[in-house]
Parts: sequence; structure tokens; C-alpha cells
Amino acid sequence: MTRPTLSGVPDAVPTVEVQELLQGNDLELIDRWLAQADPVEIGEELSRLPKERRAVPFRLLAKDRALEVFELLDPSVQQELLAGLRETNVRQLFEDLDPDDRARLTEEMPATVARQLLAGLSPNERRLTSTLLGYPEDSAGRLMSPEVASLLASMTVEQAISRLRHIGHSAETIYALPVTDGARRLLGVLGLRDLVLADPGTPIGELMDTNVYSARVDTDQEEVARLMREADLLALPIVDTEDRLVGLVTFDDAMRVLEEEDTEDVARAGGSEPLGRPYLATSVVQLARSRIIWLLVFLGAGAITVNVLAIFETTLAAAVALAFFVPLVIGTAGNTGAQSATTVTRALAVGEVRLADLMPVVGREGRAGLFLGVVLAAIAFVPIMAFTDAGIAGVVSITLVIACTMASLLGSALPIGAKRIGVDPAVMSVPLITALIDASGLVVYFLVAQIVLDL
Amino acid sequence: MTRPTLSGVPDAVPTVEVQELLQGNDLELIDRWLAQADPVEIGEELSRLPKERRAVPFRLLAKDRALEVFELLDPSVQQELLAGLRETNVRQLFEDLDPDDRARLTEEMPATVARQLLAGLSPNERRLTSTLLGYPEDSAGRLMSPEVASLLASMTVEQAISRLRHIGHSAETIYALPVTDGARRLLGVLGLRDLVLADPGTPIGELMDTNVYSARVDTDQEEVARLMREADLLALPIVDTEDRLVGLVTFDDAMRVLEEEDTEDVARAGGSEPLGRPYLATSVVQLARSRIIWLLVFLGAGAITVNVLAIFETTLAAAVALAFFVPLVIGTAGNTGAQSATTVTRALAVGEVRLADLMPVVGREGRAGLFLGVVLAAIAFVPIMAFTDAGIAGVVSITLVIACTMASLLGSALPIGAKRIGVDPAVMSVPLITALIDASGLVVYFLVAQIVLDL
Repeated sequence: MTRPTLSGVPDAVPTVEVQELLQGNDLELIDRWLAQADPVEIGEELSRLPKERRAVPFRLLAKDRALEVFELLDPSVQQELLAGLRETNVRQLFEDLDPDDRARLTEEMPATVARQLLAGLSPNERRLTSTLLGYPEDSAGRLMSPEVASLLASMTVEQAISRLRHIGHSAETIYALPVTDGARRLLGVLGLRDLVLADPGTPIGELMDTNVYSARVDTDQEEVARLMREADLLALPIVDTEDRLVGLVTFDDAMRVLEEEDTEDVARAGGSEPLGRPYLATSVVQLARSRIIWLLVFLGAGAITVNVLAIFETTLAAAVALAFFVPLVIGTAGNTGAQSATTVTRALAVGEVRLADLMPVVGREGRAGLFLGVVLAAIAFVPIMAFTDAGIAGVVSITLVIACTMASLLGSALPIGAKRIGVDPAVMSVPLITALIDASGLVVYFLVAQIVLDL
Repeated sequence: MTRPTLSGVPDAVPTVEVQELLQGNDLELIDRWLAQADPVEIGEELSRLPKERRAVPFRLLAKDRALEVFELLDPSVQQELLAGLRETNVRQLFEDLDPDDRARLTEEMPATVARQLLAGLSPNERRLTSTLLGYPEDSAGRLMSPEVASLLASMTVEQAISRLRHIGHSAETIYALPVTDGARRLLGVLGLRDLVLADPGTPIGELMDTNVYSARVDTDQEEVARLMREADLLALPIVDTEDRLVGLVTFDDAMRVLEEEDTEDVARAGGSEPLGRPYLATSVVQLARSRIIWLLVFLGAGAITVNVLAIFETTLAAAVALAFFVPLVIGTAGNTGAQSATTVTRALAVGEVRLADLMPVVGREGRAGLFLGVVLAAIAFVPIMAFTDAGIAGVVSITLVIACTMASLLGSALPIGAKRIGVDPAVMSVPLITALIDASGLVVYFLVAQIVLDL
């Protein structure tokens, strides 16, 4: 047992030392560390190194270990690593990758580099990869492995096992075996478990499960991954427009897609653009670049709040205490809107809410917002009255009720509306919604103030 | 082929009709819909029904279909559904569940109901479930299936396949076969693929992979799931403190855990407590309850901003235009902090950042925040000067630089600090960090104003 056993005990090994070791000159020390570390560990440490420092430790790995580690790296890191290796090693790695991993890596490269590497592939590998690259990005066709071990319905169990002995080693998996007719049309799927436990003479067509999911090559990869997660699928057959089997998406690719999609959603919920690469492999400039766009959006929306306040300047001057509560009011309303937005966006992402649910969802969120506004107003009233007077307290409380309700309505409707017009709902991010609510909340605040305080 | 093929074409079936159909009185119509729908679909529609309306359609399902559908439901929905079924059906469903699914469902029940149902189990099932429930919640022990098909290293391939024919049907999976010695200590894992493709006389001990991961029963479930995702594991053996095999966690459970954990993290990033159940199966009151706590926190922090503004009342009165820019300044700084916080929290969750990385991370985030503050200040200066005067513009710009830097430092340090003291970093949620930054940002704003404008 050479790989680590996870335990409830927190990791005590200081990472800094490993990073220093890998960047040092003592090649024998690096070699020793590499020998006792497992591929996931090595991959993690390589990803954290500055990009120009990765090639040296990587080159010390034996060929098959190197491939194992390489396969686990994020494509952005893979691409940077290749830049530091000798051309022969690059060609070899590229050739040894599975076609779907190769396709992913190619997406990260400049077009010239990609063309060159693809041209250097063996004909079979080049064909497999070109097929995948022919499909749209983020589609099932790009995600799938074209190297499928499939069976014919007319085979017997014995013939099937014999076939697996021939092709089993090159297929991505043999645990889920798609079954086709002579024209390669998908008829069902047979699990290796059922094959192994069956009598040798049974026809495959009798054993297979015909009640199976499949997906067209042009299906979005996130849809594929969510279905596999919901139906607990080890693998999903992919078919072309004529229902012919063209590939298989396996659970590990589904898990990776879900992690990427969730990282994107979390980034947008927090008001950044997704990094698209491991965090510590991202430079400060890249970090800043992923955030500046939304901050500029917020700044622009901030200009609106400035104007609103300037318009209501006389109201402010007449009741200066109103200014004290501006951050509290718009901040609370903004948070309420953010809560609605993130909840609804997530529900949309995991398929719990559909476009047809717009009215029920907005209705519930509106009621929740109203409820929250009333509770907050009730709690805030007396302390504010004690701090200033009943008039101001009344204005703040009434505004909270109205603004929180508005915020929930807006926060829930915008993501669904975005999806309806084909925009990623997560783009209706927290900064955008908060900005809209800040501006409208301020307007409500001052109008209520004018009415209640008779200004 | 009776299950739907996913395609790039968006779903055109109106869901509302299905919901009405399932709540109607036409049992034959419901029966027909159920017959053509697949388990995932049925599960989704049941989850969306009001809880008192689920039992009727569910009872129309044939026994094995009913189990299939039941297994796919979220435990909170499972538990509510049980309440509407006859006792004999409940006992049967409970008995037929896999032990790990049963343990999950039991967690959702009131203790009295759980005890009663557990008492009604057959002795073997009760033993299996009690074992799982003996482990802490959210641990590998709770997540695993105790029904593991394991092999002895001393067996031959032929003997192994023969054994699988006997026990293969009751095991959770036979695709990953843990290999043990006579004392049940884990020695390695053999994939069914390699078993099937090998010569019958080969000893298992020679075929197996000894270079395998495992986890102790007390490991946190999220750690287990992330490892499986990183290392593309179909299954992970679970061992006790003496390295004896006690169970197996499969990829589908890992995927589910990751989805739950990500939903929790997204909820907290948006300032809510996680719902813990499907969105449309959550009542308005439950929605509101998941949000009120953070809003109260924000309200409390809002009290601080009120006090800060009151303290600097004279400064405000001396330069009224300062009030116009309050939402813009604290909103922008707040967003910058939120960006840092969500990025770092996510990186912590997926294992890209570790506790030892505190200084490097805070350093990078601080630089990013400074960079962003300077860019924003540069962009904002001239328009603000045109709107008011150079003095105010100077105050706003300087504040933006300082506040954005502070916000990034705080936003990145707090999640790591939280994890260090054993608190879920996602609790350092956007409302909490925004509240802290609003208050401190305001103080900076007015201090800068006093200095620059000589007030």
C-alpha cells in the first residue's frame, strides 16, 4: 500500500518545503520525493510551481509515470508545461494521451502549435482527435471518448468476452458496453457485471438493458453531466443524428465538467469572471483582469446612485439623518436580492427549476422577500426611533419592506429571464443585481421620505 | 430504446401540464404518463408536487419501478413521501434500499420514526445500517456501502470469478474489487476489466494494483469525494483504524456529495444558509428562514455604518457632496472583497489552496486589490471632478485605492483564517465580509476627506 490513506487527521506536511525542494538544484532530492509521491500529489505541486519551473521536475519522471501525472493536470497547465519540454517528449506525450484529453488540451493551445502537434500524430490518433474537434466546444461530442468497446446484439456472451479480450485494452472503459445492430445503431447497454455473471450461450440482445439514456453529439456538456449525476450513470452513450453510436462519456469526465461549471457559477455569484485555470497557477494580473469588468459595471451603476442622491439633495439637506441609513438600507436590500439570485441560479443549474417555472418562482421569492422585509423592519424600527425619531424610523422601515420585496422579485426573475434569451443565468451576478437594487432602492427611500416626512 | 435521447434542442414539453395531470383525479391518465416516463423524470415531477400530493401517483408504480424512483429522490422528499404511504409499503421500501441510502434517509427522520423503521428491518439489513449509523455524520463511514465484493490475494482468477457469481448480485459494484489478506487487511484493488481479460490461473495478488488510495472511516465525506474526482476513481476502499476493509464509496455517491457541497457553498456565497432540499420542494417560510440570519447579521453591521456616519456628521455637513458617493465607494469596495472571498473559498474547497498558503494568497490578493483600486480610481477621477470638484474626486479616488486593497486582504484572509480554526470557510460569506468592509470603508472615506479637504 504505497498511496496515502486519507484520515480524519489534518495534513501536517508543510507545503512550502516541497515547493522549495522542487525549485532547487538537488536533482537527487527531487527524484526521491517524486518516487514516494503519488500522481495526484505530483500534479498538485507542479501546478503550484511558477510555470518556468515545472519542466525540470517533470522531466525526471519515468515515461509512464509522466503520462499519468500529465493526464491529471488542468489543460492550461499542460499547455504551459509542454512549452518547456523537448519536442520529442512533447510529441510522445501528445500521442499517448486519450483522444478526449488531447482534444481538451488542443483547445488551450495557439492554433499554430495545435496544427503542428496534430500533424505529428500517428494517422489513427489524428483521425480520432479530428473527429472530436469537429464538434462544437462544450458539446457532448468534444467530451466523449470515441474509443468505445461495443457489442452486437446478435453475439453470445462467449463471443462478447472473446471480443473484449481483443479490444478491451484500448477502450476507455469496458464496464458499460453499448450494444448496437449491424448498422451501428444503438439498441441498449450491457454492464460488464451482467456479462460476467451470465451463461456463456445467452445472446447479448436478451441480456442488455434497452431502457437506457443516450445523448446526441450536439448536446451541451453540462446537460450531459447533470443527467449522469442524476441517474447515477457510469457512462452515457453518444449518438449522431441517425442514432448511430459514436462515443461514450464516462463518469470522470462528467465529474470534471460539473466541477468546472460549479467553479464558474461560484465565480459569477461573487462577481468575477471564471479564471479557467487553477488558482495558484494564475498571475496577479490575470486575477485582476477577471474582476475588473464587473467592477466597472458596478462603478457605472454607482454613477446612477450618485445622480439619485444629487437629485434628492434637498431632501437630504432637510433631514440629514436620512444619510446615516443609506448604506444600511441599500445594503440590506442588495443582500436580499443576492440571496434570491444565487438560490434561483443554482436551482436552474442543477435542473430543479425550469424556464416554465418563472411565475411560481418569482411569486415565492416575492413572498419571501416581503416576509423578510417586514421582519427586518419590525426589528429595526425601535432602535432607529431611539437613535433619531419616529419619522426617520418609519421611512427606513417602510423602505426596507418595499426594497426587500422588489429585490427578491428582481433577483429571482433576472436569472430566469437571462436563460430564456439564451444568456448564462450566472451572468446575472451579484454585482449586477446589487447595482440595480442599490439604485432603485435609493429612489424608493427618498420618495418614501418625501411622503412620510412631508418634504 | 425507451428513454429519452438528450439533444441540443431545448425541452418543449410544458411542465405545468404534467404537474396538473399528476394532481388530478384521472388515475388512468397518470398511469399512462408514468408508464412512458423514466425514473429520473418521475422523481423530478414528484419532488415538485406539494408534499401531500405525492403519494397517489407514487402508489400507482409497480414495486420495482417504485424502488428505482424512490432511490433517486432527495432524502428530504423520501421522508415526506413515506409519511403518505401505507405501513407495509413503507417497510418494504425501507427494506429494499441499499444500506447507505437507508442511512441517509434515516438522518432526515424524527428519531422515533427512525427507530421504528429500523426495528422493522430484517436482521442482516439492520446490522448493515446500524454499522453505518455508528459513524459520524458526513464521514466516509456514513457514505460507504458495507456490501463490498472483495477478493483474497491468494485466489486465482478462476476462483475469483466463481466467487463473483455467488456474491456479485448483492454487492454495490463489482467493477472495483478490493483485495485483502486473510485478516481482511486491504492489500490492493483489482479492476473487473483486468480480471476478465486475464488468464484463469493467475493469482489475484499478482494482478492487483497495490498503488491505491484508501480512506479511513472517519475522513470527511467532502475530502473523499474531491480525491475521487481528482484521481478519477470509480470507487474508493474504506478502512478502519487497523487498515481492515469495511466498505467502498462509489463514484455516484461522490458526485452527489460534491453537488451538495457546491450547492452549500453557492448558497453561502450569496448570503443564505443552504436549503438542504430541492428548491421547489421548499416552502416560502423555509426559504425565508434560510436567509434571515445573514440579513440580521448585515442589519447589525449596518448599525455600525449608521454610527460611523453619525460620528462624521460634521464632516458630511461641511462637504455635502461626500454623501453622494457613499454607496459607490462602499459598494465597489464591498464587491472587491466579495470577489476575493469567493475565489479563495472556492480554491480552498477544491483543494487548490491549503492552510499553509495564507501569506502567498493574501499577498497576491492584496496586490490584485491595489491594482484594481488604482485602475478604478483613475477611471473615476475625471468624471467625478467634472460633477463636483477636484477635492471630492481626490477623496473618492484615494478611498477607492485604500478600500479595495483592504477589502481584498480581508476577503482572502478571513476564509483561510476560518478554516484554520475549524470553521467552514464558506461561512465567511459575502454579507459578512461586505458588512465588515462597508464599515471600515466608511471610516477610511471620512478620514481621507478630513485630511484632503482639511475639515
